[in-house]
Amino acid sequence: MRDSYHEQLLAVTDDLVHMTKLVGTSINQATQSLLDADLGMAETVIKNDELIDELSAEVDERYMELAARQHPVATELRTIMSGFRISMSVERMGDLAVHVAKQARLRYPRPSIPQELRGTFAQMGGLAEAIVSQAGTLIASRDLHTVGSVLDYDDEMDRLHRQLFTIVLSPNWHHGVEAAIDVTLLSRYYERFADHAVTISKRIIHIVTGEPYAAVDVEAAVSEVPMLGGTARS
Amino acid sequence: MRDSYHEQLLAVTDDLVHMTKLVGTSINQATQSLLDADLGMAETVIKNDELIDELSAEVDERYMELAARQHPVATELRTIMSGFRISMSVERMGDLAVHVAKQARLRYPRPSIPQELRGTFAQMGGLAEAIVSQAGTLIASRDLHTVGSVLDYDDEMDRLHRQLFTIVLSPNWHHGVEAAIDVTLLSRYYERFADHAVTISKRIIHIVTGEPYAAVDVEAAVSEVPMLGGTARS
Repeated sequence: MRDSYHEQLLAVTDDLVHMTKLVGTSINQATQSLLDADLGMAETVIKNDELIDELSAEVDERYMELAARQHPVATELRTIMSGFRISMSVERMGDLAVHVAKQARLRYPRPSIPQELRGTFAQMGGLAEAIVSQAGTLIASRDLHTVGSVLDYDDEMDRLHRQLFTIVLSPNWHHGVEAAIDVTLLSRYYERFADHAVTISKRIIHIVTGEPYAAVDVEAAVSEVPMLGGTARS
Repeated sequence: MRDSYHEQLLAVTDDLVHMTKLVGTSINQATQSLLDADLGMAETVIKNDELIDELSAEVDERYMELAARQHPVATELRTIMSGFRISMSVERMGDLAVHVAKQARLRYPRPSIPQELRGTFAQMGGLAEAIVSQAGTLIASRDLHTVGSVLDYDDEMDRLHRQLFTIVLSPNWHHGVEAAIDVTLLSRYYERFADHAVTISKRIIHIVTGEPYAAVDVEAAVSEVPMLGGTARS
């Protein structure tokens, strides 16, 4: 029974990881829809978000069942309680991909972003895809060595976010107010997307180390990783 | 033991309600700092968010303990699991108040919003304060009659949010790109603030009715309230 319970917990974790993969596809396609003003691609992202929401609902139900059926303590309890919150973050990341796609749809057939910013948004899209993939790896492996690259991607995302502010506010900006607002909101969606990956990392550190979530210092945890070791699914 | 357990659960709920009150004060003060370009007030909001974060951390720890120490099922389990997520929403609402305050601080001593939009932001501030207060009442009482006004406030907030978009995008807008971006982001903070109150309402309906969270239809729940009755803390 106990073993089967542990297996079920791992199965829910697998679904959580699967959610991150679906969200990775979503943000990739959302970015493409944005860069190419591709309406069909935007609609795909919007439509597929239902699958992510359904999977998220299923994951939540199973965490509830696992919490109810046994008496989880220590790592198992943290896995359930934190997993329950991680699914919320991943689901929200899916929503942010939808926000990007809806922005592309709103301006179709015009592109939503000026030509000269395509490169920056392509970079942001690439970072978003990379960070959610790393978050998935971290959820699956609990190898805290992964946290470092999540933070690096997030730093780079923040840098691009600030850079875009500088561009739209510069005297050289000649695309008008609407484009400035579109760029600002889109940039914020990507930036928030990355923030959620950092939050997920913090929750995994909490699961692995047992430190209270609020006390987890992600930066410090990264520098201490050799001490913690990569305790995959311990 | 069971009674004491139930009392402890109610005590955590009280702290959750207390969090909503602190956030109500924060969003009120953040709005004031915005309307009056009041740096001291903005700093107060930013500083006081630490208290909300601390309380949130404490609430989370106590939910973890309650989940670990006994074997909660049914309503109690939903109360713990959902409370654990509600605290996240309330804490995030506090962050959004901080975003507003930081925007006021960023532009100080200039006002962050044009004179003619002060009225709209005052309304948004009032709605935000009202909606978090209603969310607190709902958490405390579980009286689903409260949900209707949460939805009404949220609808009104969405209307103002759309109105602001129309204003900054109109040909009459003569405050430039920076002010347009400030208004857009600020408006989004208030809109997201209200969204969290709707999410909290959905979670309370889930606790009261036992319906899976993802299946909760908030609008439908409101129209069915007379059937459900006001099952305060049942």
